[in-house]
Amino acid sequence: MESDANILPRPLRGIFPPMVTPLLDRDSLDVAGLERLIEHILAGGVHGLFILGTTGEAPSLSYRLRFELVERVCAQVKRRVPVLVGITDTSFVESVNIARKASDAGAQAVVLAPPYYFPAGQAELLEYLKHLTAELPLPLFLYNMPRYTKAIFEPESVRAALDVSGIVGLKDSSGDMVYFHRLQSLLKDRPDFTLLMGPEELLAEAIFLGAHGGVCGGANLVPQLYVDLYHAACSRDVSVAGSLHRKVIQISSTVYSVGRYESSFLKGLKCALSCIGICSDFLAEPFHRFRSAERDIIRRHLDELGITRPRQS
Amino acid sequence: MESDANILPRPLRGIFPPMVTPLLDRDSLDVAGLERLIEHILAGGVHGLFILGTTGEAPSLSYRLRFELVERVCAQVKRRVPVLVGITDTSFVESVNIARKASDAGAQAVVLAPPYYFPAGQAELLEYLKHLTAELPLPLFLYNMPRYTKAIFEPESVRAALDVSGIVGLKDSSGDMVYFHRLQSLLKDRPDFTLLMGPEELLAEAIFLGAHGGVCGGANLVPQLYVDLYHAACSRDVSVAGSLHRKVIQISSTVYSVGRYESSFLKGLKCALSCIGICSDFLAEPFHRFRSAERDIIRRHLDELGITRPRQS
Amino acid sequence: MESDANILPRPLRGIFPPMVTPLLDRDSLDVAGLERLIEHILAGGVHGLFILGTTGEAPSLSYRLRFELVERVCAQVKRRVPVLVGITDTSFVESVNIARKASDAGAQAVVLAPPYYFPAGQAELLEYLKHLTAELPLPLFLYNMPRYTKAIFEPESVRAALDVSGIVGLKDSSGDMVYFHRLQSLLKDRPDFTLLMGPEELLAEAIFLGAHGGVCGGANLVPQLYVDLYHAACSRDVSVAGSLHRKVIQISSTVYSVGRYESSFLKGLKCALSCIGICSDFLAEPFHRFRSAERDIIRRHLDELGITRPRQS
Amino acid sequence: MESDANILPRPLRGIFPPMVTPLLDRDSLDVAGLERLIEHILAGGVHGLFILGTTGEAPSLSYRLRFELVERVCAQVKRRVPVLVGITDTSFVESVNIARKASDAGAQAVVLAPPYYFPAGQAELLEYLKHLTAELPLPLFLYNMPRYTKAIFEPESVRAALDVSGIVGLKDSSGDMVYFHRLQSLLKDRPDFTLLMGPEELLAEAIFLGAHGGVCGGANLVPQLYVDLYHAACSRDVSVAGSLHRKVIQISSTVYSVGRYESSFLKGLKCALSCIGICSDFLAEPFHRFRSAERDIIRRHLDELGITRPRQS
Repeated sequence: MESDANILPRPLRGIFPPMVTPLLDRDSLDVAGLERLIEHILAGGVHGLFILGTTGEAPSLSYRLRFELVERVCAQVKRRVPVLVGITDTSFVESVNIARKASDAGAQAVVLAPPYYFPAGQAELLEYLKHLTAELPLPLFLYNMPRYTKAIFEPESVRAALDVSGIVGLKDSSGDMVYFHRLQSLLKDRPDFTLLMGPEELLAEAIFLGAHGGVCGGANLVPQLYVDLYHAACSRDVSVAGSLHRKVIQISSTVYSVGRYESSFLKGLKCALSCIGICSDFLAEPFHRFRSAERDIIRRHLDELGITRPRQS
Repeated sequence: MESDANILPRPLRGIFPPMVTPLLDRDSLDVAGLERLIEHILAGGVHGLFILGTTGEAPSLSYRLRFELVERVCAQVKRRVPVLVGITDTSFVESVNIARKASDAGAQAVVLAPPYYFPAGQAELLEYLKHLTAELPLPLFLYNMPRYTKAIFEPESVRAALDVSGIVGLKDSSGDMVYFHRLQSLLKDRPDFTLLMGPEELLAEAIFLGAHGGVCGGANLVPQLYVDLYHAACSRDVSVAGSLHRKVIQISSTVYSVGRYESSFLKGLKCALSCIGICSDFLAEPFHRFRSAERDIIRRHLDELGITRPRQS
Repeated sequence: MESDANILPRPLRGIFPPMVTPLLDRDSLDVAGLERLIEHILAGGVHGLFILGTTGEAPSLSYRLRFELVERVCAQVKRRVPVLVGITDTSFVESVNIARKASDAGAQAVVLAPPYYFPAGQAELLEYLKHLTAELPLPLFLYNMPRYTKAIFEPESVRAALDVSGIVGLKDSSGDMVYFHRLQSLLKDRPDFTLLMGPEELLAEAIFLGAHGGVCGGANLVPQLYVDLYHAACSRDVSVAGSLHRKVIQISSTVYSVGRYESSFLKGLKCALSCIGICSDFLAEPFHRFRSAERDIIRRHLDELGITRPRQS
Repeated sequence: MESDANILPRPLRGIFPPMVTPLLDRDSLDVAGLERLIEHILAGGVHGLFILGTTGEAPSLSYRLRFELVERVCAQVKRRVPVLVGITDTSFVESVNIARKASDAGAQAVVLAPPYYFPAGQAELLEYLKHLTAELPLPLFLYNMPRYTKAIFEPESVRAALDVSGIVGLKDSSGDMVYFHRLQSLLKDRPDFTLLMGPEELLAEAIFLGAHGGVCGGANLVPQLYVDLYHAACSRDVSVAGSLHRKVIQISSTVYSVGRYESSFLKGLKCALSCIGICSDFLAEPFHRFRSAERDIIRRHLDELGITRPRQS
């Protein structure tokens, strides 16, 4: 049975929340909050867990803490669902280090955006992927996050990556649906290659038109909403999916939109999790948690949305 | 009956092709091609015609030619469908001049993107809209085209524009579906305010989730495809709509993607129209028509897509 | 003598203020202000006048008004200095129209930035220049203004443009000094090709290292400051030039930096000209003049800078 | 005497080469090459050494290798000149770790650009600096590198940073001379605060107009050229400085400009160092060394520039 859980379905389908990293301070995990958060998310019926991504503030964390997180999460999930671990780094060597740690801890796959300091060309990216996959102990998902990494895996590079052993899917957080549809078209003869949508605001349409799932930040907060939306869209129920989609947009327009910085998504999400008693809202530098004025706004938005403290926590 | 045609439905629903401007040279219309193009488009069952937009190369044309085009199009359409005229300009005075010409010629509405030389702030844009609508003889659609105009009507500005008399809708060519969904959410209490999708690659999902129609460049070439997709999406037939959507993506990935410049969309579309005998493929500076190598590629794409010379032309 | 004035020196050396366009409203020149402004500028010892550039709000003006301005300026300058006329436009035909008007009115040269709606590729730009110069009655200066036009004449394109008949110089407003130095290096065997610096903050160093002059917006306000700086830098007096340069930076950090929009340069400059009694501060849409709060700040900055109403106006 | 070397002059004046990191493979230093490189640079008369910056590929290196490099460099320099160590990182904790290592090894200062994954706001950056300096054992130089870090220390933030204990200077690699001049103006009452120019193409003018020195990548290759240019500019010899400046531009237009990627600077510099026998040209992922075609071009450029193998190496 354990062996089954360890075999990653191809394609991988469903909702894979990019887990926030509960922190007590810049180098300490909120261990109790982490446990509550994992159980809260799994109780929503999600299909896996993605840690150490952008929503997980991975680049802001020390390697020591990243390693601790990988171990604690894998230990608690106990293969109930696959765990995907972000290994994006500007240093090839450090990416491999985290991947090995993930494999040792029992994770099922790793996820990688382009190195994000130097902007690499597409040919360079492809060579980098070939070198990297040769060193990786786990299957790899590519991850487009051009806003933060300055690079995207262009369609021609994705086509070439299909032939690189060990690359099994792609998560697109570009928000560029024209690009996404072109990828879908490109992948039509490779049904085993997983295509996941990043921004939750685009989940409904991505599933309608053929994507395999989503990596929805809001699924930290209300996992069942995204799971329900996923199932409605899979069964082509435009009416129900549209209604759940509008709820998602409402969360996005309120909880993620307080304050004027780009980080409002992350601050709003952690604040909301704190408001409903799941985990601490501490953010690693360069960010900081919402002060009380913003927290009051978040609390009001949660009330209007009917998002409340879960019974068990 | 004619009077009916002149009353613009609110909201305006359906497919409104952004017509290319057939040219013999930089300051001469291809008059015969223009007539064939209009009849070809209308035969596809579209719900209106949008002239002098980006696809129409409006900014590259002399004012004399723009005026001639407005008159010829209105004269030929003869109110069979509404004609919308682009009045985007860096000069307020010239925008008003075109709007008056459009009204005199019998057009039903005008369409305006932000002035595109100086990047204006949102408060400045809103004041500009208030000054401008006071001078306009026709209802106004806002037009987001941030790639070319450096500015977008941000959600808060759209909310404020709802109270400006004369503004009846918005066409969004940003390609940013998260933005689009936020607009849809914002407009949920104003069902009379028209929301149209620009990029045809996003038409299916826009309609599924509540948009009123699309301004699809490909409807110059194969208008019925977009009309059929519109109807399938309106009736929530995910299967048929998905199939037509994939055809749209195939056109986008082939006909619009020859060559390395951003202008490949425009060059490919005009080249394709020339290949099937509709109109000349001349482009105004700073562009030029495809040379024979690219033209051969376009022809091959059209063959594969089954897009052929219409019988009547 | 008149014939001498009409022959443009090659290279053209000195200070060429990009004249603001005094307006009473969006389509009316402030004729009296225009006369005062021209005399104020010429009294400062400048070497020419550049009208209908970015500082002149050319794209925001109707063609009727642009034509009127060309005629009035040429009539008043009476060949005391060369007049350069901006013909930048998205429409090739309209650029030629303004150039002909400029020639008829007695201007000495025209100035052109790339067409600014569609982003053209370098090969397209070069072809465009070849077509255009064939139609122009006056010598042409290229004009880099990438912030507003989305395109720059890249070094290889400038090298190719050296062989296009009629192109006699380039004004660079990119603010990119590395690019500028590469151009200087490229042009070292063409001492007849004029290279002018746009941003006045970079005038001193441009002249130290070989540029021929500057197109300084601040020379509308205090023309002699820029003329003096030009002469000090030409004579390699680092100490005097440095001192005048610091005055220029002080103007830039105060008069041009009120408010949060990019247009603060233009608003501040027109406001300052109004404060010292030269001309109206009306701005064409999409901008508007400073309200009284900002005007008070400008007035205070002018006091601190010792910029006062000139005696004769 | 040793104690003198350890006290950092304020301001710090001169040429501080951003040292490339000689590598044998992605996780091994080229130890012999490193020794030759350090002696080659110091023989040119430079005033200090900056390691683990952008030119040093710091973000691409493992922490293990970064630590090894810090120790080896400090051990070899033996306080002959100050060593500045880059501590830029997306993780606050890791920045502090490197700073402590630098202090232990005997370095004199640390250098920090904004964290480069998440784009932080200015208020967040300032708070980050306050938290960070409290943990740092060495004085801190700020480092603007907006192309790679997405953020700049805006003038108002620099003004505020003047009051943060431990911040002693700023290196600006923005290439934006208007910004740089505004900083100079801002700092006129703080002559102890060091202002250094990044791009070597702007060194001459920066020194003419008051900067304290430069961080010139080319000083890895021909250190004396930059030292001579620095001295000529300090003594306001426009003629000699101009002539050396033109040599710098020639290097920039040739050695740094082979190939189409942004990384051509780094690849060209390492290739040139290899051609003249200083050190290996291996680059860490995502880059790779020039292949033989590009290497031949670099060799030809070096010949034309008269840059040859130094006698002692």
